[in-house]
Amino acid sequence: MPTLPFKTILHLARNSKTPLYIQICNEMIRGVVSGVIPEGLKLPGSRKMGVLIGVSRRTVILAYEELEAQGWIVIHPNQGTFVSSKIPVVDKKPIKAGFQEQPTTEKVGFARSDKLDFLDYYTPPKLEGIRYVFDTGYPDVRLAPSRDLSQSFNRALRSKRHSKILNYYSDFLGHPHLREALAIYLSETRGIKTALPQLMITRGSLMAFTAIFQVLLEKGDKVVVGDVSFMVANNIVRIAGGEVVTVPVDDDGIDVNALEKLCQKEVIRAVFVMPHHHHPTTVSLSAGRRMKLLWLAAEYRFAIIEDDYDYDFHYASSPILPMASADRNGTVIYVGSLSKIVAPGLRLGFVVAPADFIRDLARVSRFMDCHGNTALEKAVASLFQEGIIRRHLKKSLKVYRERRNLFCQLMQDNLGERVRFRIPEGGLAAWAQFDEQLPLPELRDRAAAQGLLISRSVFTERENRPINAIRMGFASLNEQELEAAVELLAEIVK
Amino acid sequence: MPTLPFKTILHLARNSKTPLYIQICNEMIRGVVSGVIPEGLKLPGSRKMGVLIGVSRRTVILAYEELEAQGWIVIHPNQGTFVSSKIPVVDKKPIKAGFQEQPTTEKVGFARSDKLDFLDYYTPPKLEGIRYVFDTGYPDVRLAPSRDLSQSFNRALRSKRHSKILNYYSDFLGHPHLREALAIYLSETRGIKTALPQLMITRGSLMAFTAIFQVLLEKGDKVVVGDVSFMVANNIVRIAGGEVVTVPVDDDGIDVNALEKLCQKEVIRAVFVMPHHHHPTTVSLSAGRRMKLLWLAAEYRFAIIEDDYDYDFHYASSPILPMASADRNGTVIYVGSLSKIVAPGLRLGFVVAPADFIRDLARVSRFMDCHGNTALEKAVASLFQEGIIRRHLKKSLKVYRERRNLFCQLMQDNLGERVRFRIPEGGLAAWAQFDEQLPLPELRDRAAAQGLLISRSVFTERENRPINAIRMGFASLNEQELEAAVELLAEIVK
Repeated sequence: MPTLPFKTILHLARNSKTPLYIQICNEMIRGVVSGVIPEGLKLPGSRKMGVLIGVSRRTVILAYEELEAQGWIVIHPNQGTFVSSKIPVVDKKPIKAGFQEQPTTEKVGFARSDKLDFLDYYTPPKLEGIRYVFDTGYPDVRLAPSRDLSQSFNRALRSKRHSKILNYYSDFLGHPHLREALAIYLSETRGIKTALPQLMITRGSLMAFTAIFQVLLEKGDKVVVGDVSFMVANNIVRIAGGEVVTVPVDDDGIDVNALEKLCQKEVIRAVFVMPHHHHPTTVSLSAGRRMKLLWLAAEYRFAIIEDDYDYDFHYASSPILPMASADRNGTVIYVGSLSKIVAPGLRLGFVVAPADFIRDLARVSRFMDCHGNTALEKAVASLFQEGIIRRHLKKSLKVYRERRNLFCQLMQDNLGERVRFRIPEGGLAAWAQFDEQLPLPELRDRAAAQGLLISRSVFTERENRPINAIRMGFASLNEQELEAAVELLAEIVK
Repeated sequence: MPTLPFKTILHLARNSKTPLYIQICNEMIRGVVSGVIPEGLKLPGSRKMGVLIGVSRRTVILAYEELEAQGWIVIHPNQGTFVSSKIPVVDKKPIKAGFQEQPTTEKVGFARSDKLDFLDYYTPPKLEGIRYVFDTGYPDVRLAPSRDLSQSFNRALRSKRHSKILNYYSDFLGHPHLREALAIYLSETRGIKTALPQLMITRGSLMAFTAIFQVLLEKGDKVVVGDVSFMVANNIVRIAGGEVVTVPVDDDGIDVNALEKLCQKEVIRAVFVMPHHHHPTTVSLSAGRRMKLLWLAAEYRFAIIEDDYDYDFHYASSPILPMASADRNGTVIYVGSLSKIVAPGLRLGFVVAPADFIRDLARVSRFMDCHGNTALEKAVASLFQEGIIRRHLKKSLKVYRERRNLFCQLMQDNLGERVRFRIPEGGLAAWAQFDEQLPLPELRDRAAAQGLLISRSVFTERENRPINAIRMGFASLNEQELEAAVELLAEIVK
């Protein structure tokens, strides 16, 4: 009977600190588990095996004893040593406590599609040594009602109905209490009257966009966005197989006349807009353009995806109603998020659309993640019901207005003409255009070395054309931090 | 100057309880907001308007006064009444407190793709009057360490590093503490040694499957599954544009010889397996077939997607190691979930794969939902670190073993030959084949009427062929509930 090439199969490291007999065990186990050494195989005797793999007989005996104790092999006296015909169970006792870094398996052994290779790999920014961050417009979570949220979560998790909340993969549209609370909130704050079958909770607005474009688009279908726009949404369109087509963005938002010309030439499936504050430039879509956009949608039967990511923050006057509140033709798909209101870490977003479309969305999103964290959704619903969200919004609006004023003042005083920006009427960021002699990639590197992180422009770059401007979030930094951060920036720019 | 057809534009309901002047206001606002009534338009005087729309002059005056007070129109003495050229802000005061059901807008005004029309609409089961549920194999969340989880969440949310946890859309791979805790847990419980760049947290295993198939598949790429299999995964393959190809499933799991023949004929991109307990039939993939499957994957360069949804629950002996622990060629993508361990409502799953593939996944999943609930991930990491998960698993395994034994005994005693099933060696459900004279759809209706919900077979149906069998979860019902539920079922079946 031929013998397996054990010398090749069992990789032994002579200069390792691990005893040779343990190495033999581990390699035998790998061989058996990976199928190289078949179950039931009669193994060479200890002497022969020793010769085959170049170790002493004594070492092989030790290894065989250990393997037998672990159930990997069976020793029949007078018959020989056999690989067990039943693969033994894993030893559940940890070898060593705590986490040990393993060597990384890098390479895949299978083929995959290259259709998503247009997407960049993301490298998270290094946060060591960073003292201040100009983000792209985040809230200050230090203001968030964490104690209330925590208590509410606790109640949701441990209530009598706890079993129902945590068990049963719940309603795919989201927890009914949160959907009711959102319906009231949308009605009260922005005139959107929605029936519950028109409202769905998502894990953040990104998941909403993913599901929406998956439902809407056939491969090659065209979606119109501004020529500077929220790049994340553009990529989601492309992941869903769609094609991104751009129209100019000016001080009144996207150019709807250019859109009309496009519609006359080709089939447009959807238009992605942020009427309240265009991302990244923060401009509002003018009332006239909103009307025209609604009219075009009805005329050409395309969907308007209205991303209303920061409706709640307006400083000067109150904002114009969302387009969804004026939609009588079922053309608007309205997407909002609680990330800016409570905290990005919660991942709560929502969609309002005609009930037919919500049913379509649910049929996809239930395969995407089934449903959200039911206890958390219930907890946030309580915060709405108890007026805690309302109070929090009122308080944070006041704080953010003061921070905006301070930030703009500091920027003007310290940076003067080198950075141009308009005082934002709302939102959590300003659109700052840097002097062309201050190229942002270089500036960002220099700032990071000094402890100031300026958020990457990955979300704000113009399609196919770099733009030396950036969103500068002012809301997540307090007074002292804003002063120190702008001062640091001024030093670097000097 | 021609006058707008106000009679047509303003829909007034004569028999409504809402005063006519309020109706006129609301209709005028809709008209302005929707663009039918242009900004700056001079309105007919109150007398003329009254004639146009068939109401008294007094009613029009009341409406105009209200509209002026709200800022929608401007009355210039001696010049006339004009639609405001700036659309006014929404009134932030709620009209009435509390939630009011709205009439539902059903119909969409845009075209959408029909490529997902193969997916059924889902109707959640009616839970009114239901006393007992045979689910498809859920844990009993009443056993879950809710108090510990809640305390841990509270700490995560309110810790000093709270700001970092909740702010900054965090690491797309998941909270580093949870990834470390999972790496230890996977090593200790199932021999999977993974480096951190090979491990990614997802929102439940479904999101993992969605991202995996999106990365792997081109349109029309073939994925092999069992001819009875987890239908949810089949649908996710199709949503990603893939084609589902089946091979038979018998008592040793999927037929790898049939798979080999397929591979010889055509390109197979991936094989979806549940080696530990095939869903729905609960059989284990034999050791020999596992070996052959690994070999075929290396030979034909396809990916093995190993769904290990309930590894932790094994009653008789300990389970065979997952295939991922024996993969030396980078062919296995291992997917697990904490749904069964802690609670489905938490939506925590994970993927282990070669680092290259994890990078590919992250580049898609960050557009899908950015990242998970960071505070929750941190909280669950603490439960691992403090040994709470381990204790919980030990305790629940004991409870579930007893429930399995009781359930099987009760079924045999009460239903005899009418339902055939094998005593499951592990997992939270038994695969019960019903007498053909007891068609399940009918039985389910009769049971629901009696207060017993039997989970829909949507997840367990054979491709293209109904099968009169079902997974019956026994773990989420306690002793008394099991007795009552089986007794009820016996009555219905009689």
